Amino acid sequence: VLDPADWERFRQTAHRALDDAIDYLRDSRERPAWQPVPENVKQRLREPMPQEPAPLESVYREFAEFIFPYASGNTHPRWLGWVQGSGTPSGALADLLAATMNSNAGGRDHAAVYVERQIVRWFRDLFGWPETTSGLLVMGTSAANLVAILVARTKAIGVRVREDGLDQHTSKLVAYASAATHACVRKGIEAAGVGSANLRVLPVDEDHRVEPARIAELIARDRADGFIPFLIVGNAGTVDVGAIDPLGELADLAKREHVWFHVDGAFGAMAYLSERLRPQLRGIERADSIAFDFHKWLHVPYDAGCVVVRDGEIHRATFASEGPYITRMPRGLAAGEPWFTDYGPDLSRAFRALKVWFTIKEHGARRLAHAIEMNCEQARYLASRIESDADFELLSPAVLQIVCFRPRAPLLDDVSLDRIVDEAVIRLQESGVAVISTTTVFGRRAMRASITNHRTTIEDLDLVLESLREIAGGLIAKRLS
Amino acid sequence: VLDPADWERFRQTAHRALDDAIDYLRDSRERPAWQPVPENVKQRLREPMPQEPAPLESVYREFAEFIFPYASGNTHPRWLGWVQGSGTPSGALADLLAATMNSNAGGRDHAAVYVERQIVRWFRDLFGWPETTSGLLVMGTSAANLVAILVARTKAIGVRVREDGLDQHTSKLVAYASAATHACVRKGIEAAGVGSANLRVLPVDEDHRVEPARIAELIARDRADGFIPFLIVGNAGTVDVGAIDPLGELADLAKREHVWFHVDGAFGAMAYLSERLRPQLRGIERADSIAFDFHKWLHVPYDAGCVVVRDGEIHRATFASEGPYITRMPRGLAAGEPWFTDYGPDLSRAFRALKVWFTIKEHGARRLAHAIEMNCEQARYLASRIESDADFELLSPAVLQIVCFRPRAPLLDDVSLDRIVDEAVIRLQESGVAVISTTTVFGRRAMRASITNHRTTIEDLDLVLESLREIAGGLIAKRLS
Repeated sequence: VLDPADWERFRQTAHRALDDAIDYLRDSRERPAWQPVPENVKQRLREPMPQEPAPLESVYREFAEFIFPYASGNTHPRWLGWVQGSGTPSGALADLLAATMNSNAGGRDHAAVYVERQIVRWFRDLFGWPETTSGLLVMGTSAANLVAILVARTKAIGVRVREDGLDQHTSKLVAYASAATHACVRKGIEAAGVGSANLRVLPVDEDHRVEPARIAELIARDRADGFIPFLIVGNAGTVDVGAIDPLGELADLAKREHVWFHVDGAFGAMAYLSERLRPQLRGIERADSIAFDFHKWLHVPYDAGCVVVRDGEIHRATFASEGPYITRMPRGLAAGEPWFTDYGPDLSRAFRALKVWFTIKEHGARRLAHAIEMNCEQARYLASRIESDADFELLSPAVLQIVCFRPRAPLLDDVSLDRIVDEAVIRLQESGVAVISTTTVFGRRAMRASITNHRTTIEDLDLVLESLREIAGGLIAKRLS
Repeated sequence: VLDPADWERFRQTAHRALDDAIDYLRDSRERPAWQPVPENVKQRLREPMPQEPAPLESVYREFAEFIFPYASGNTHPRWLGWVQGSGTPSGALADLLAATMNSNAGGRDHAAVYVERQIVRWFRDLFGWPETTSGLLVMGTSAANLVAILVARTKAIGVRVREDGLDQHTSKLVAYASAATHACVRKGIEAAGVGSANLRVLPVDEDHRVEPARIAELIARDRADGFIPFLIVGNAGTVDVGAIDPLGELADLAKREHVWFHVDGAFGAMAYLSERLRPQLRGIERADSIAFDFHKWLHVPYDAGCVVVRDGEIHRATFASEGPYITRMPRGLAAGEPWFTDYGPDLSRAFRALKVWFTIKEHGARRLAHAIEMNCEQARYLASRIESDADFELLSPAVLQIVCFRPRAPLLDDVSLDRIVDEAVIRLQESGVAVISTTTVFGRRAMRASITNHRTTIEDLDLVLESLREIAGGLIAKRLS
């Protein structure tokens, strides 16, 4: 038996760990936003597999000393690096409960399945989709996009693609997405055997949005060349700057051309919860499928993404499979059709719906929407401060919660300034004061603050900007001296 | 802010939930092994998305009343249905801590990445693999198999398959696996665009094992027909009966034919931890890649699977990708190469390595191996009881932990007996006494007990058999009357 020999002793350790976890989140502001993993910790985490048991207390102590302090840091109020949620204490508690129940949500007849269906239904209703809608929770939007790509592949070729694979005829599938699209779409196209050469990558306009007219031209040309246009991917929040493609126009185009319209809404789709932000996203509700994450802007602990598909039949036809060991029964535990495994690649699936359920039940859609609106306001604040600041240049507007900028240094060449951007961001991270990230905006290295964080305040943003002014200022002065 | 307004009040609720969770696992024997989800619960879980917040206490109460009691049941000592682990309290605690840290293990420089590398290294060392080995944690063996299939595809065609996709030439890829192989392999072959028609499904011998000589014949014929053999999948524990393919012979064949050799070791690979069981699995260590689960026979909470690949370069070449927002830096949080996202489809990845780390640190390899050995002994016990029992017929030997059997009813036709098998298993589940599953063994419906459970005792197995005798006996008598 792998259960504790002494349950009361286990209980003590567990309660202590829980207190530490609560303190950890309550005091996130007191810790560095990030600190490097020390050499002795790296060394320790190279030890070979232990053969003998150890008391849980000592395993916990080792965790508390060598692992707990060296998180990636996204629970910190000044962690604005990349688009990651900041977690919540009740989300973590929900994961404890899900792991306690230890249900496999791949299928069968038990609560985890009903909760996951409820989550899917909530978002189906949010987008105003019909009863035919299907969906499932996955690790994240990368997986959700892959699922959507495979469903679109079935739609274009028919379910025979599962048996036949891609051959000389069907290998002519082509997809369309802007250059601002996340790399995981390309990876999904590759995994599906379509080949990234068949992903037409379109340049973006000055607002980082794809131009539907250009896609229309390409589709016409591709059709003339014997290709089979099968997928248009629109972005609801591009990863670099948070731009939103003209989703309504893309929906029109897709409908006209009979091409699957998928929206990568990794973070942006959640802004649809806000009545104030919804108009910016109009058109997303006309997609054939949408991918998004709960662990980003809903702050559900990692990992939890979702894909919803308007036509549940074609979705099921893409993944449903049989095996004598998974025969469905009319009653008992093997009942409960439809099974989630018939809608995705996985049979083993954690009860990740529970942390989403807890988060939405506790906060309600309105408060979650408000936290998203707040981040957008903060981004606009930061952008306007930067615009009126002689030391900084704004590189992208705050469409949603992302702001890209960099120091002004008229006396420096671009290559030198690019290097200073990278170095300043590293130094800010190393200082432990805050974490922002870098990206490239129209060829220029940029500092990128993604305010996907319910703990961030205006004062935090001020401090980030002042810290960067000091660090970058010093680097520029040194370079010029 | 989505944090509690009153941290002490949150602390109270959380400690109460933790106590409930501990009691839940401690008293798992007192609850039904499974109970159907009542209609009022299903109804409740159809409520629309709440707009307004609710106190966490009331959300927790709703969970405790409507969700917690209706788990799939695999934490129960008499849950022998399908191959699922039974979880541990410290595994659940580890998930709380991982969710608290909320790190994204897709990449970057923080503890989650080092812990995951350690886990991969532990299993690399277990199989005696070289430094070149790569690996990553995924949701489960379905995902792990898909990763391996994609890596094998790269190996056969070259990295250009990512760009070119599968065309008339490369669509001639063919793979080989026995009819006893899990459906997820077929799904992976389909997702990869290879097409399941190109999966050669071989019949098994009387021990449910594939015959390597038959694969060799097929490879020769396929080569002559212009196909490209690219993958042999061996099973270390087939899903229906737990058979182990002749892995050493398959390794020889794959080497001779220059074909990728992948082992689906979803549960069986973990038996390699046991010195006593290791000889049965000999040959697995000569694979090019192995897929396995931690949430099955290591009892880590759902979900946590793993794939290891001997040639880390080809693994990386299959998935590595670039984006300005994921540029690697020499220092700071964006350092820490290699990133796990370069070895799989996902960028957002929970710190699922932590629960594996806790499990192996606390119990040590030897105790975990012992629990696996114990399950195999229990399976042999059950099989021998069945063999010497006039009321039952053994349908598959206990190679590992799975036993398939059914009632003897010489006066009944096969179709009627098949129906009674299914009905008896359903009734056993509905009784709450135990859960076993059904499958088909050489065309006959079978009762299937998968003793992947560290809480099961010999007395539990006796009770399961007696309950089945009573239920099936009644059904047979009624059918004959």
